[in-house]
Amino acid sequence: MKDEYPTTERSRLRRKHDRGSHQRADVFAVLDASPLSHVGYTINGAPYVTPTLHWRDNDRIYWHGSAASRFLRKAEDMPVCLTCSIMDGYVLARSAFNHSINYRSAMVFGMAQIIEDSDEKAEALRGFTESFFPGRWNSLRPMTEQELKATSVLWMDIEEATAKVRNAPPGDGEEADVPVWAGILPLRTVFADAEPAPELPGTIVLPEALGELLCSGRLR
Amino acid sequence: MKDEYPTTERSRLRRKHDRGSHQRADVFAVLDASPLSHVGYTINGAPYVTPTLHWRDNDRIYWHGSAASRFLRKAEDMPVCLTCSIMDGYVLARSAFNHSINYRSAMVFGMAQIIEDSDEKAEALRGFTESFFPGRWNSLRPMTEQELKATSVLWMDIEEATAKVRNAPPGDGEEADVPVWAGILPLRTVFADAEPAPELPGTIVLPEALGELLCSGRLR
Repeated sequence: MKDEYPTTERSRLRRKHDRGSHQRADVFAVLDASPLSHVGYTINGAPYVTPTLHWRDNDRIYWHGSAASRFLRKAEDMPVCLTCSIMDGYVLARSAFNHSINYRSAMVFGMAQIIEDSDEKAEALRGFTESFFPGRWNSLRPMTEQELKATSVLWMDIEEATAKVRNAPPGDGEEADVPVWAGILPLRTVFADAEPAPELPGTIVLPEALGELLCSGRLR
Repeated sequence: MKDEYPTTERSRLRRKHDRGSHQRADVFAVLDASPLSHVGYTINGAPYVTPTLHWRDNDRIYWHGSAASRFLRKAEDMPVCLTCSIMDGYVLARSAFNHSINYRSAMVFGMAQIIEDSDEKAEALRGFTESFFPGRWNSLRPMTEQELKATSVLWMDIEEATAKVRNAPPGDGEEADVPVWAGILPLRTVFADAEPAPELPGTIVLPEALGELLCSGRLR
């Protein structure tokens, strides 16, 4: 396995301002840090961007079909672009031009595939659940055949990818004589306290693994 | 101004699972809650999804051209889809099928336009800065002609839009006899303490308005 993804014009578009990387490790780091991604399809020549949750098995990215399933049935072998972005903070500079954000973003290109086989789909959904909540799958009420049919799982093998990261103070330190506050307003996505379902029996407490997740600073 | 956006097939795709709304107020509420959006373009028939910050003046949405400017110069009059999504929490159910997330999402369709006129662009950038940090624009070192040229601002008038929101406990309360923890793990995006730029003179303290933003629970 190579460390770096190949590039064509579409992924080079993104490297322009020099924060880009085609390193596999950089791309994986972003994809693994946040489960929310936006998948772009082309429908009748026009773009359609839908939010979803993704998970990853090496170079294969899976995502949840969710809504829009009528058209997702036609998505097989369609080119897709999956982008995952995390805002880490606002960067306030002395000039409007140097205002920015600190962020991490990965943009991944490939061809959408749909899992048709029931066993494969069940295995992918197990991977999905376990990627968020290790050990949870076996504690759940098993999936029914009907539920499995009602769920779409798509995947692609990464053909090209770029990661971009900005993690720095404002870039106009040489203008420090401008009398305005400059710096970073950091943003963090964190868990609040767990909210048990209304009908949850009082005897069932939050599993230790979930309690650890809430305190971990990670999203999965 | 009508309260509801018109619908065609593309936005109906999204209403399928009944959490959708075409109400202007619902769409605005999501767009205004988070500045991060993902804009989809079609380039050579394939999708390209890029993260950006957006701001809004009534039905007109602006976004920052950022990278990819070579191709953005060709984006004029291209159909775009701008999607803005906020994860509010993981929803853990008794069955894998009923796992979900609480979220708010808006999907907006229109034709991309590029601001060419310098004065218009400067005015849009003022609106951008002020939408985040009211009062800040006038305290900044003024923009130079060169900076203005180096910045792209795009906009579209919303032609169609949908908002989707899920904000509920797990949907399988009738399966409360399955002995597994169920409920919500809420997610919040919050500010951490401001980090002054390294070279910021010690005499310049954080403006009150920024301090209030940090404590407000809002992102702008």
